[in-house]
Amino acid sequence: MSRLLTLKDHGQSFWLDNLSRGLIEDGTLMRRMRTQGLSGITSNPAIFEKAMAGSGQYDERIRAALTKSDDVEAIYERLAIADVQEACDLLLPVYEETHTADGYVSLEVSPHLAHDAEATMRGARKLWQAVSRRNLYIKIPGTRAGIAATETLLYEGINITLLFGIDAYRETLQAYMRAMEERLRDGLDLRSVSSVASFFLSRIDVAVDRELRHRIDPGVSETLRDQAESLLGQAAVANARLVYADFCEVLAGHRWRHLADEGAHPQRIVWASTGTKDPDYSDVMYIEPLIGPQTVSTMPDKTADAFDAHGRVERTLTDDAADAATILSRLADLDIDLGAVTEQLVAEGVQKFIDPYDALLQGLEARCKRLRRSAAHEPLAAMADKLRAKTIRMTTAAGSGHPTSCLSCAEILAALFFEEMRWDPASPKARDVDRFLLSKGHAAPILWAALSEAGAIDSDLLSLRQLDSDLQGHPTPENPWVPVATGSLGQGLAVVNGMALANRLDGIRARLFCLLGDGECSEGSVWEAAQFAADQHLDGVVAIVDANGLEQSGPAPYGHDTSVIAGRFKAFGWRTLEIDGHDLGDILTALEQTRDAGPTAIIARTVKGQGVSFLAGAHGWHGKALDAEQCAAALAEIKAADVRIAVEPRHVVAAQVRDTRLPPGRMSVDYAHGDEVATRSAFGSALAKLGETLDDLVVLDGDVKGSTKTASFADRFPERFVAAEIAEQNMLGAAMGLAASGKRPCVATFAAFLTRAHDFMRMASYSRLEHLVICGSHAGVSIGEDGPSQMGLEDIAMLRALDATTVLYPCDAVSAERLTETAFGTPGIVYLRTTRGKTPVLYAAEEGFPVGGSKTLAESEQDVLTLVAAGITVHTALEAHAHLRERGLRTRVIDAYSVKPLDVETLQRAARETSGLLVIEDHHRAGGLGEAVAAQVGRLGRVFHLGVSGEPHSATPEALRERHRLSSQAIEQQALALAA
Amino acid sequence: MSRLLTLKDHGQSFWLDNLSRGLIEDGTLMRRMRTQGLSGITSNPAIFEKAMAGSGQYDERIRAALTKSDDVEAIYERLAIADVQEACDLLLPVYEETHTADGYVSLEVSPHLAHDAEATMRGARKLWQAVSRRNLYIKIPGTRAGIAATETLLYEGINITLLFGIDAYRETLQAYMRAMEERLRDGLDLRSVSSVASFFLSRIDVAVDRELRHRIDPGVSETLRDQAESLLGQAAVANARLVYADFCEVLAGHRWRHLADEGAHPQRIVWASTGTKDPDYSDVMYIEPLIGPQTVSTMPDKTADAFDAHGRVERTLTDDAADAATILSRLADLDIDLGAVTEQLVAEGVQKFIDPYDALLQGLEARCKRLRRSAAHEPLAAMADKLRAKTIRMTTAAGSGHPTSCLSCAEILAALFFEEMRWDPASPKARDVDRFLLSKGHAAPILWAALSEAGAIDSDLLSLRQLDSDLQGHPTPENPWVPVATGSLGQGLAVVNGMALANRLDGIRARLFCLLGDGECSEGSVWEAAQFAADQHLDGVVAIVDANGLEQSGPAPYGHDTSVIAGRFKAFGWRTLEIDGHDLGDILTALEQTRDAGPTAIIARTVKGQGVSFLAGAHGWHGKALDAEQCAAALAEIKAADVRIAVEPRHVVAAQVRDTRLPPGRMSVDYAHGDEVATRSAFGSALAKLGETLDDLVVLDGDVKGSTKTASFADRFPERFVAAEIAEQNMLGAAMGLAASGKRPCVATFAAFLTRAHDFMRMASYSRLEHLVICGSHAGVSIGEDGPSQMGLEDIAMLRALDATTVLYPCDAVSAERLTETAFGTPGIVYLRTTRGKTPVLYAAEEGFPVGGSKTLAESEQDVLTLVAAGITVHTALEAHAHLRERGLRTRVIDAYSVKPLDVETLQRAARETSGLLVIEDHHRAGGLGEAVAAQVGRLGRVFHLGVSGEPHSATPEALRERHRLSSQAIEQQALALAA
Repeated sequence: MSRLLTLKDHGQSFWLDNLSRGLIEDGTLMRRMRTQGLSGITSNPAIFEKAMAGSGQYDERIRAALTKSDDVEAIYERLAIADVQEACDLLLPVYEETHTADGYVSLEVSPHLAHDAEATMRGARKLWQAVSRRNLYIKIPGTRAGIAATETLLYEGINITLLFGIDAYRETLQAYMRAMEERLRDGLDLRSVSSVASFFLSRIDVAVDRELRHRIDPGVSETLRDQAESLLGQAAVANARLVYADFCEVLAGHRWRHLADEGAHPQRIVWASTGTKDPDYSDVMYIEPLIGPQTVSTMPDKTADAFDAHGRVERTLTDDAADAATILSRLADLDIDLGAVTEQLVAEGVQKFIDPYDALLQGLEARCKRLRRSAAHEPLAAMADKLRAKTIRMTTAAGSGHPTSCLSCAEILAALFFEEMRWDPASPKARDVDRFLLSKGHAAPILWAALSEAGAIDSDLLSLRQLDSDLQGHPTPENPWVPVATGSLGQGLAVVNGMALANRLDGIRARLFCLLGDGECSEGSVWEAAQFAADQHLDGVVAIVDANGLEQSGPAPYGHDTSVIAGRFKAFGWRTLEIDGHDLGDILTALEQTRDAGPTAIIARTVKGQGVSFLAGAHGWHGKALDAEQCAAALAEIKAADVRIAVEPRHVVAAQVRDTRLPPGRMSVDYAHGDEVATRSAFGSALAKLGETLDDLVVLDGDVKGSTKTASFADRFPERFVAAEIAEQNMLGAAMGLAASGKRPCVATFAAFLTRAHDFMRMASYSRLEHLVICGSHAGVSIGEDGPSQMGLEDIAMLRALDATTVLYPCDAVSAERLTETAFGTPGIVYLRTTRGKTPVLYAAEEGFPVGGSKTLAESEQDVLTLVAAGITVHTALEAHAHLRERGLRTRVIDAYSVKPLDVETLQRAARETSGLLVIEDHHRAGGLGEAVAAQVGRLGRVFHLGVSGEPHSATPEALRERHRLSSQAIEQQALALAA
Repeated sequence: MSRLLTLKDHGQSFWLDNLSRGLIEDGTLMRRMRTQGLSGITSNPAIFEKAMAGSGQYDERIRAALTKSDDVEAIYERLAIADVQEACDLLLPVYEETHTADGYVSLEVSPHLAHDAEATMRGARKLWQAVSRRNLYIKIPGTRAGIAATETLLYEGINITLLFGIDAYRETLQAYMRAMEERLRDGLDLRSVSSVASFFLSRIDVAVDRELRHRIDPGVSETLRDQAESLLGQAAVANARLVYADFCEVLAGHRWRHLADEGAHPQRIVWASTGTKDPDYSDVMYIEPLIGPQTVSTMPDKTADAFDAHGRVERTLTDDAADAATILSRLADLDIDLGAVTEQLVAEGVQKFIDPYDALLQGLEARCKRLRRSAAHEPLAAMADKLRAKTIRMTTAAGSGHPTSCLSCAEILAALFFEEMRWDPASPKARDVDRFLLSKGHAAPILWAALSEAGAIDSDLLSLRQLDSDLQGHPTPENPWVPVATGSLGQGLAVVNGMALANRLDGIRARLFCLLGDGECSEGSVWEAAQFAADQHLDGVVAIVDANGLEQSGPAPYGHDTSVIAGRFKAFGWRTLEIDGHDLGDILTALEQTRDAGPTAIIARTVKGQGVSFLAGAHGWHGKALDAEQCAAALAEIKAADVRIAVEPRHVVAAQVRDTRLPPGRMSVDYAHGDEVATRSAFGSALAKLGETLDDLVVLDGDVKGSTKTASFADRFPERFVAAEIAEQNMLGAAMGLAASGKRPCVATFAAFLTRAHDFMRMASYSRLEHLVICGSHAGVSIGEDGPSQMGLEDIAMLRALDATTVLYPCDAVSAERLTETAFGTPGIVYLRTTRGKTPVLYAAEEGFPVGGSKTLAESEQDVLTLVAAGITVHTALEAHAHLRERGLRTRVIDAYSVKPLDVETLQRAARETSGLLVIEDHHRAGGLGEAVAAQVGRLGRVFHLGVSGEPHSATPEALRERHRLSSQAIEQQALALAA
């Protein structure tokens, strides 16, 4: 049998302190009544807050209440009153069985009125009438005004529960008796009126123990210390027992007996705040010693359960009454005045009621706002479902794709495209609008569906993933609404960074929404981009993370705990919002906040496969289309209201959307033959000159501007120079975004470190960018002492193997400047490879260097062999040519500065006219100039090759060229061997 | 003239509340005395804490004190006493000029004794004797015990200042008078004894205003609201004036006049807590209305300055005495009992003294500990300087390098290598030790210097960066102490992750220290690694960030604000410590904490170029060696104490350091000719089988285990399967770390996404790893519908262009299993390329597939042309072969499964025996099989090529092979054209 049930045998009632709807609806209240003898329940703003504002339990009722009133306090009361009424009704049998002595539910008057007796009375009367149940207690704080109000209210027959300090107890009891006496005098019934008075227990010990601990210090006398120690955790119970003794004395008195005879109930004492705060103490320390008649013990759930599990049930309340007095006097000996302590608690008390009450109203207000929005946005919700249905149909028709990853972001896309974004379905290339980039590219179908619904595209949605459709499996700019190709995760945020930079340069105040997945946030590139956006104060950048909690292999790293990803964005300097990604109220409220400044991350808790029961949150559905049967079942579940929402074209205010795409002019170049100048320096000098002509030229550098020589541009055009820090992926992504916004970006770092951004360049090659110039400096073993980690030896292979790229490799300052100029006039991705060391100027300033060309630097009819070189090896080849000539071997020398496309014609002629081509390159043997020549010219003659193999080392450039057979001596040897 | 100075005219003294050494030393105290009439100063634990624990001001004194005592309270008193003495001496002229009436300094007794009169008296006497100055006040809290102690102490002639509540005021005054009367009776001098009593002002208003605000609510009556509003901010001053009136009354009384006649000073009232808390109130609200004789106003700096700037100086203290009483009674009308409020403040008061006092002792304790360590580690400090000197010499000799980046981490390296790390200078390959990885590889010289000093290497330090030296510009494993090559920033942390995984597998409980730069933390790969270490609970991983605040281009993103990077590590789940990276006490304390569990990041605030005046914190020195003259100047600055510290070999407890490197056995393979199996599936199946034989096989997958088919291994060997999430850079880095710890790692993801980790693979190729198998699945346009973002079309070019790699490309299940087996027995990096779709089994189970081999699948003497294929194109080539044969054209078909190294011999024979080779590959035309064959075989015959060019699309694999001319039909067309 439940221990709680046996409390009754000792005259004590067991109440709970946590009324809420859940407790009523899930049967807990009834179960506790039946099995544990629960006979009352108090309501409490903190509990209501959790239930009303923090869960969906009350949403339907709130919606109903909202139709009647906009006042949040009124709504709260309406909700609370309903709960209290139901609880009263459940407890009515107890009330009746105990002849009105027990079976109560309490509800509090606004604590803001605690010091105004009249206002408190008005509030109490209102609640009393509204609830309209005899077994209701109106809860009133025990302030002077509160006690005054009590007397009147009790006289009026309203049941009251008071919360008060000990000193005021007698006054309270007096008020009760006076009220009863008045009623008696006026012939009113006494039995129907009831009152209880609550004592807070644990808080007393907390306060007294703190004082006692001041007396437990190594510096004080042992006696003081021992005394203080022995009194820890004693005050509350002792005090309660004394109060109870007082109470008994009054009950025994003549005055009370008279009232009792007339049917008056005693004003029972309620032990409240019975949960133990100090973990060193017993968890039933405020239950066990306070069991006795005419009392109520109100417990939190946890305490009730603890007591039920191991509580000792005995009548203890009248034990040691003398001891209790001793404890108080011993406290007084230690200069601890329990009166002062409880006085202080009462002073704090009203605030302790006000805080949770206000928190409740605030939380409820927010929830009301959200629900109001949700209600207002039912068409959007229908649109989300419509997008879901289309997505499922499309992927089933295609037989592949990622439907579940689309379903999780349906509300987000609906909210963006049909409400928050200012855009124009007729203008895919407009820049004076908010733009959207789908970083989680595998959700492409829902993007196509949204664009189609908005009338922005007229492609057949069911052509998804077909060869002749612009609706590919992952977004590419074949579809005009896609700024850059996505689908390799973690790239989108860097790209919107670039779009935001372009907007800032052009005075466009628009937002750039980037939708990411949660698993995607494991990519470091996301954090490079996050750092960049915050450090560059890119206000318009909005990251929305569709945290559906699942990735291919199982749960995403942090499941649905949005706080982890939010915490990271915060640590990277972003404003963050965590929302329910299926709640349109939440989504729209969050999106509205992105209108303010600051990069903002919205972490949306969503469910993968949301909207279809067998997909929602289910494992094993990543990247799988539904078969026809599953598709039909899914569509049957989705309410397919045929909503249509017209998208009004909206443009933003743009200070100056410029179109200044000047063709590169004929730049003046000024070097003398033989000047020693590094090609990287010439590149830097050309950049600075081009900056004058090309308004749309923007330079990004990976913290090596002193090495790549972009510093000269940075000094001259600081507003168009971007310090991209040591974060190559973001740098390339930002350049893609700039290019996708009509800028002519140039990215520079060590050629070796471009490998860091290989995947970004790969995606750039599928992004149909008008211009993107990439400069890799410090090419080859010729950098020397820094060693292999800093040597670009695979950059040509990397850039050649991308679609539609141009690879240029100047050997002197003139060709470097001219090729830089050419690069900015050449469509698509152009790679410029520069050299660290100084090289002599070979060309006249007016020389032209067309893409696809080459320069024959030495040629005669006696040429036996052709030396094909580029960059640094042009100089060693020329040296070898001179030495060989001295030794009687004539060689042709070709500067193949255009590595891709090659000057096939010239090379073929050389192949025909000489006995073979010897290609010399400061690059790994695979994938470079040598293989390109062999593949494209080899059918007409023999192609030989000197390139880097073996692990390079730290050493002087000369020593390294010697070791890797790129020196003139090595060329001579090889040429002589071939000629032999 | 200063307004503060004129307070004196009204009998009020101006004191400050913030004594500390700084105030004395910088002349502020003297200046305020001279110009503002400052005539007293109180000391205060919060101020002392800031100065003693939070700054270096007291460090020398603390060091001296530490030689005398270890007790922190004694040290605090020693420091405080010295300050108080100096302040007393400075104020002595005031004391004398005012005939002992003013010019006091206060010092408090431990508030822990506040409730023990005897203990308080002992404490007070001790301080009084120690300070030994007549113009000292001993500060005592106004508890009952405190007041009792006061009387005795005053009688003994000790000056007392009391802090108390208003109700106790009379008692205090009585105690004072009784003490004076006793002294008089016993013939003791009265003039030399003095006492003041302090009232806290602002705190009263804070408490009362909070109460008043409860009465200002829309729900309460207008009257109540108005009354409450009119009383805001009035209580403290009103109360003070009433107290002052009391005081004056006592002074006017007979009893006092008698004492005064005998020379007794009145017990002056001190207004304390005079800083305004509520910003709505005047900032001099506790100064202006309380000016009057026999009082002291103690101000915080800010209030003093505000009053000096705009205070009104008038005698105001006796104004409106009646009004003051009215205010109190109006408060009482509102049920606000000022007595209760002040009672509460007193109750809180002791705690408000204890908290800052304890904080002071704690802070001081920490500083003592740190200074004690610093002192104990002077040899380490000398070692750091020695490493600095060597570094500078080395880089000057080399003529290049990064000396300033070495100087910033000298103390960190000294602490690690010569104190905290458990390692063995004789065992570079030991694993049962703590290991170190220099992620900021450009600081290599100081690593070499440390290893040399420890006797771990005997290389000539001055050979740095020379061709025949193992001391390269950036670390490579040519030096046996370097686990993997570093120098491309942002890679080290991922590598130590792998080393930690290996340690966990082998039960080695050691730490892995990784030193990073601050600029380096911009690399996203750092955050991939940070996430991985935390999510995998890699306890031994320690990141040390050398936050020297400068990078190549200028300041690092967050300068010296270590909190930004620390906040990020925290958000990624790490424990973090922010320290002064040049303070060995700090460093060693932090390193000690890394012995506990949990990945730990130490963010060390350092100065780039530390130790040399013209380098320290100077811009423009990144990556520059000093010339001979600068070198000499630098060495002259560095105190070159010739310290030697022997490193004792220390090994950690290792549960089971296993060496189970079995050679791959002959695996059983079971497929029938013609079975349709994807090579990726066969790879997965082989992995699972190899897991049985190879204990050291560890598989890492980038959240695509269902696609790469590593799932079969994961299911079978979960402890050796690493879910590396969508973070390819960390995945590769971790694999490098595993390989550097003797494991046989295998990494798998889509071939396309390997481009993400290109730079890591590049560095892996310089890392002399015994084994690293990389599998790229979903190769070529043959993946079909997912589109270009998911297609690996440049992977062969990428892997071929790295040094010492092997590239294998199976076409059926048998070759896939056999090549997987071969890969794990092949040294260095082996790349395996697999295909998404199913292909028929071609080979018998027992077939062998050696590296460098090929399979001729069709051959005859009539062969006109050779079709060279690999992977998926082997099947289209075979189909074409059959069709061509029907049309009378005989072709040879070669499966070139070993793409690197190629089977040159077989291909050369085919080139000789047929009229040409037609290479067909599902890869971009550049850098793949076609160019490899052209370069290596082309000199013997014509090489033609069908490969992917143009942008691929979403479509079926068949449609894409058709469009990109890889289908059998396209091969037939091309073959017929070539044959014609």
